[in-house]
Amino acid sequence: MHADLFMVPGPVQEKGLAGKTLVMIDVLRASTTICYALNAGAKSVIPVSEPGEATEMRAKIGVENSLICGERDGIKIENFDLGNSPLEYTREIVADKNIVLTTSNGTRTYGKAKNSGVIITGAIVNISAVASRVAREQKDLAILCAGHMEHFSIEDTICGGMLIHKLLTDEKLILELNDAASLALLLYRSNSRALKETIAQGEHGRYLGKIGFGEDVALAANADSIPVLPILQDSRIKLEEVEL
Amino acid sequence: MHADLFMVPGPVQEKGLAGKTLVMIDVLRASTTICYALNAGAKSVIPVSEPGEATEMRAKIGVENSLICGERDGIKIENFDLGNSPLEYTREIVADKNIVLTTSNGTRTYGKAKNSGVIITGAIVNISAVASRVAREQKDLAILCAGHMEHFSIEDTICGGMLIHKLLTDEKLILELNDAASLALLLYRSNSRALKETIAQGEHGRYLGKIGFGEDVALAANADSIPVLPILQDSRIKLEEVEL
Repeated sequence: MHADLFMVPGPVQEKGLAGKTLVMIDVLRASTTICYALNAGAKSVIPVSEPGEATEMRAKIGVENSLICGERDGIKIENFDLGNSPLEYTREIVADKNIVLTTSNGTRTYGKAKNSGVIITGAIVNISAVASRVAREQKDLAILCAGHMEHFSIEDTICGGMLIHKLLTDEKLILELNDAASLALLLYRSNSRALKETIAQGEHGRYLGKIGFGEDVALAANADSIPVLPILQDSRIKLEEVEL
Repeated sequence: MHADLFMVPGPVQEKGLAGKTLVMIDVLRASTTICYALNAGAKSVIPVSEPGEATEMRAKIGVENSLICGERDGIKIENFDLGNSPLEYTREIVADKNIVLTTSNGTRTYGKAKNSGVIITGAIVNISAVASRVAREQKDLAILCAGHMEHFSIEDTICGGMLIHKLLTDEKLILELNDAASLALLLYRSNSRALKETIAQGEHGRYLGKIGFGEDVALAANADSIPVLPILQDSRIKLEEVEL
């Protein structure tokens, strides 16, 4: 099967994704936050592009059973319930709630996925669950990295490389890789023993550390710590039971 | 000094390039072709975005001392004098001519460079000359890879990594790298012994091989074989004497 990785979502054409398994990756922090939120009992996460859409969506689905959440420049949006730090998404706060989430990069990528197959939210915290789900699907794979403002970011590409590594070694798949997927694999294999440090030293890792979210960076690099499978269906991301 | 690499030109903001030394890289094949053309005695290369602009430019500068050249999908544009294969640019054909060049990816990137410092065309065939010129300039560096249709391409990023490697080792510069520059350096260092093979096996290398330009791919990977310094000034790329 083919495995294509895209380091930024901008130039990806919707028609190129048709029928493929899709993995959406925004390690710092949307993907990680989605894993944490669903693991803490949130009913669903609804990704939207803009803060205004989040407010409208909340009004539509009902204020009492929903929270509006998200960030710009890493900081919680004014008057929103939560920001984009995984640690905010505790069971007390999010259980049985629908989380309407808007982030600078990650949540925008979901708009690309109209005619594709299964759409999985991938992060380092759930990487093995994602790999086994991709393998089960037996379809061509597209990995969409969120990047940062349409620029490459090291943590998303390294996570994509980690997924490819697991597909090759744990799942024993034979893959045809595009250039970016080969590079991602090299990036992961060259840094697999220092994943946390590599991500913390990346551009966005350094920025989050500087504005007080160093702990988020460390937990986002913790492989298989939250082994859930968030799947997008009908514009909502919900948990799928993982068969381990 | 800072050394930032951009894997694709799309998201690069003009203002982010102000005052910096710029290296434009499109290994397959615009950068390589520009080196070959100027080395064969062409007076200048004028990069333009679209075939229509090329025809207009030729009318403006005079038909008798100019050639219109370029490709789409790797193939010479109909009614143009030359395509984009370095081997077409022989002394007999191009000496003392102005080459108006339009290619799918490479020549479009030059539009980004309005307020920057010196603008160098970089390829593997002139990499050491580029490194020594960048070092002499002593300014922050931006490396703009052309990529392929706004997607990452391995040959441009590996060339950017080779430049950074040379700046660090041959030129003994101390550099602060962005994420993409770090990755490019890793990519180069992991493949430096098999540069030709890595590029030939990349997406665009395979495509060019398939349509009969395998020789172009091999010569584009031949380090320091055409040690010229093409510099953009007043919308024309001309040769600068290299001090070796």
